[in-house]
Amino acid sequence: MTTHEILTAAVKAKPAVAALSNERKNEALAKMAECLAADSEKICLANREDVEAVKDAVSPVMIDRLTLTPERVRAMADSILQVADLPDPVGRVIESISRPNGLKITKVSVPFGVLAMIYESRPNVTSDAAALAFKSGNVCVLRGGKEAIRSNIAIVSALRRGLSEAGVLPDAVALVTNTSRESARELMTASGYVDLLIPRGGKNLIRSCVENATVPCIETGTGICHIYVDRAADFEKALNIVDNAKTSRPSVCNAAECCLVDAEIADRFLPLLARRLRDDRMSAGKTPVELRLDGRASEVIDGTPASAEDFDTEFLDYILAVKVVDGVSGAVEHIRAHSTGHSDAIVTEDAESAEIFASSVDSAAVYVNASTRFTDGGEFGFGCEIGISTQKMHARGPMGLKEMTSYKYVIKGDGQIR
Amino acid sequence: MTTHEILTAAVKAKPAVAALSNERKNEALAKMAECLAADSEKICLANREDVEAVKDAVSPVMIDRLTLTPERVRAMADSILQVADLPDPVGRVIESISRPNGLKITKVSVPFGVLAMIYESRPNVTSDAAALAFKSGNVCVLRGGKEAIRSNIAIVSALRRGLSEAGVLPDAVALVTNTSRESARELMTASGYVDLLIPRGGKNLIRSCVENATVPCIETGTGICHIYVDRAADFEKALNIVDNAKTSRPSVCNAAECCLVDAEIADRFLPLLARRLRDDRMSAGKTPVELRLDGRASEVIDGTPASAEDFDTEFLDYILAVKVVDGVSGAVEHIRAHSTGHSDAIVTEDAESAEIFASSVDSAAVYVNASTRFTDGGEFGFGCEIGISTQKMHARGPMGLKEMTSYKYVIKGDGQIR
Repeated sequence: MTTHEILTAAVKAKPAVAALSNERKNEALAKMAECLAADSEKICLANREDVEAVKDAVSPVMIDRLTLTPERVRAMADSILQVADLPDPVGRVIESISRPNGLKITKVSVPFGVLAMIYESRPNVTSDAAALAFKSGNVCVLRGGKEAIRSNIAIVSALRRGLSEAGVLPDAVALVTNTSRESARELMTASGYVDLLIPRGGKNLIRSCVENATVPCIETGTGICHIYVDRAADFEKALNIVDNAKTSRPSVCNAAECCLVDAEIADRFLPLLARRLRDDRMSAGKTPVELRLDGRASEVIDGTPASAEDFDTEFLDYILAVKVVDGVSGAVEHIRAHSTGHSDAIVTEDAESAEIFASSVDSAAVYVNASTRFTDGGEFGFGCEIGISTQKMHARGPMGLKEMTSYKYVIKGDGQIR
Repeated sequence: MTTHEILTAAVKAKPAVAALSNERKNEALAKMAECLAADSEKICLANREDVEAVKDAVSPVMIDRLTLTPERVRAMADSILQVADLPDPVGRVIESISRPNGLKITKVSVPFGVLAMIYESRPNVTSDAAALAFKSGNVCVLRGGKEAIRSNIAIVSALRRGLSEAGVLPDAVALVTNTSRESARELMTASGYVDLLIPRGGKNLIRSCVENATVPCIETGTGICHIYVDRAADFEKALNIVDNAKTSRPSVCNAAECCLVDAEIADRFLPLLARRLRDDRMSAGKTPVELRLDGRASEVIDGTPASAEDFDTEFLDYILAVKVVDGVSGAVEHIRAHSTGHSDAIVTEDAESAEIFASSVDSAAVYVNASTRFTDGGEFGFGCEIGISTQKMHARGPMGLKEMTSYKYVIKGDGQIR
């Protein structure tokens, strides 16, 4: 099927999918999980072909991300079942308004309609996104990367069989098998077909979607996250938080990329930080963190001199930019200029500094005495996430099922005219 | 100032404006209203020049829209005071989440930041938009049409003096005085400067913004609104509603453009409709409504034969497309294919038909037994509106102050790491 045919079928499936009860949706999700698990061998075989095709061209990390095993397919099926267990995000009464003229206005959550996803990540995104879109009453049109196309075809084929077995139109979940740039462009500009576009992947993919999309598009992802260690910080907490935010999973968007240290305590804190992130890790046989220091920090400890770019870089690696700032106002000023608006934290025992930071930093998630790594749908209690929005329109921060719905107003009257 | 300089100043003013208390904002709004009223003569003089410049080229309706009088300026000032009276949309706690690990997550409303508006309507939009943006903690960058540029300069000059007198940065409200296409294009693509773009005006303006914007943009406006008269309709209510929705103000987006009539009652209802919209209006010396009839309707009453296009046209005039459909499912099917998702209504005394219609029609506002003319921020009880969104992302239907804010999560911990 051409991308256009897929989109046409998706629009056609929209009303039926939107009208499904929570029970029907959950039955279908169970069937989707069942078929996925049943096709495990087939999926892993297809995946092996994908891996073979790129194995000489990409890094071991990339190979690992691409690779599926029976265990991983099992985990994908389990994720679908977990999505089924979440409350139905559709049909919630968000607000009820009674007007003096007798009109009763109800603001009620509804699906977007057709949700398009362009992504380049692991094949498990395919089943995750399909489950989340379906649970929120949306039809989804998925366009994964070329490197995972055989895996994605096998996965979507299983999911669609699950839908059919549950008596639901299989067009509720569709895969664009053409992985050219043109097919991506077609989704971005499919006005009247695509109600919401969610790109997931690297900076270039996101940029391309934001710049070229004429359909509503959510900007996700890039996180240049800061931890500011205030003069009133508990050093133990500060070290734990910076360490966790930097090293627990450096490749993710909620990992810290920059540590700002209050000038008042730089002399005392920086040596502790260097020991914790470099020496201690080295002794423990772990990758040490490379510290890229601004002028003032390098007067206190050794490290790589930071270039100006280092403060605008999402390293996604064991690298941390370090800068000495003048108190909370200096931290806020730096963050305003360099943050991507994802997650930023202050470590302080001073309630006033915490308050200034929390109200002045305009990021999706602003932390006081906690790691930026918590910016995640699961950690926020949403039970899942489709991505993390770094823009302010519609959704900000982790996007769960609720953020995958829109709303409408239903107004009941008795003949009112204006 | 160039558009770029204006945008730079706007970004700089953002934190200070976002941090203003409700009291400070209200004081400033009072000063803005005061200065506007004080400058009434100056504004009307500038407006006369605007009117002189176009008076031979445009319709009397356009001239009337453009013209300001001391009374109209007074009304603009009063509107600003009314906005001041509304509750502060910033700083609302939308949700509080306590996590098992002790994290306290607060979802709190925040301003967008820099709000750009491109519009071509009456000069009162300038002061209305400025007041709404300011009350919601946003800096606004306004770009009105060329035809009103002298009026807009005079209005914004008064508003900025008001801000200064209240001790607020006048850059909170800025006017782009370059009214070329290029300045509009610059706003649409000002990534990193403009946090939200709201176009207001004709179809072409909106289309151009949606297609060219790389900044988050709200699609507003076009309304092809339907009234479906069901077999179980109370005819008196139906006639009142269709009449009101079509004739009370034909030039607005929530006016009805199409009446769908259930085949079961077409024989009885259509003659009443023709009498009400044509004969009665003619006898009363009012403009009769031209009925454009589909094949089945023209078997019952006289009228202009409808072309296919008539069912996809926003007439904004005393013209109504009329079609006979087979029950509520026929109505829903037609609306799905032809509605712009603005406002659609059913007239019926049958609860089941009402329910089917309300749940199946996916428009911003779905009415049961009331006129589509109620789709309006004031009528919904929002106290104001900046526009009516016809898309599903972020805001749908009338956008009040609440819809002019985003949110952020503030997470407080005690050293939590993940």
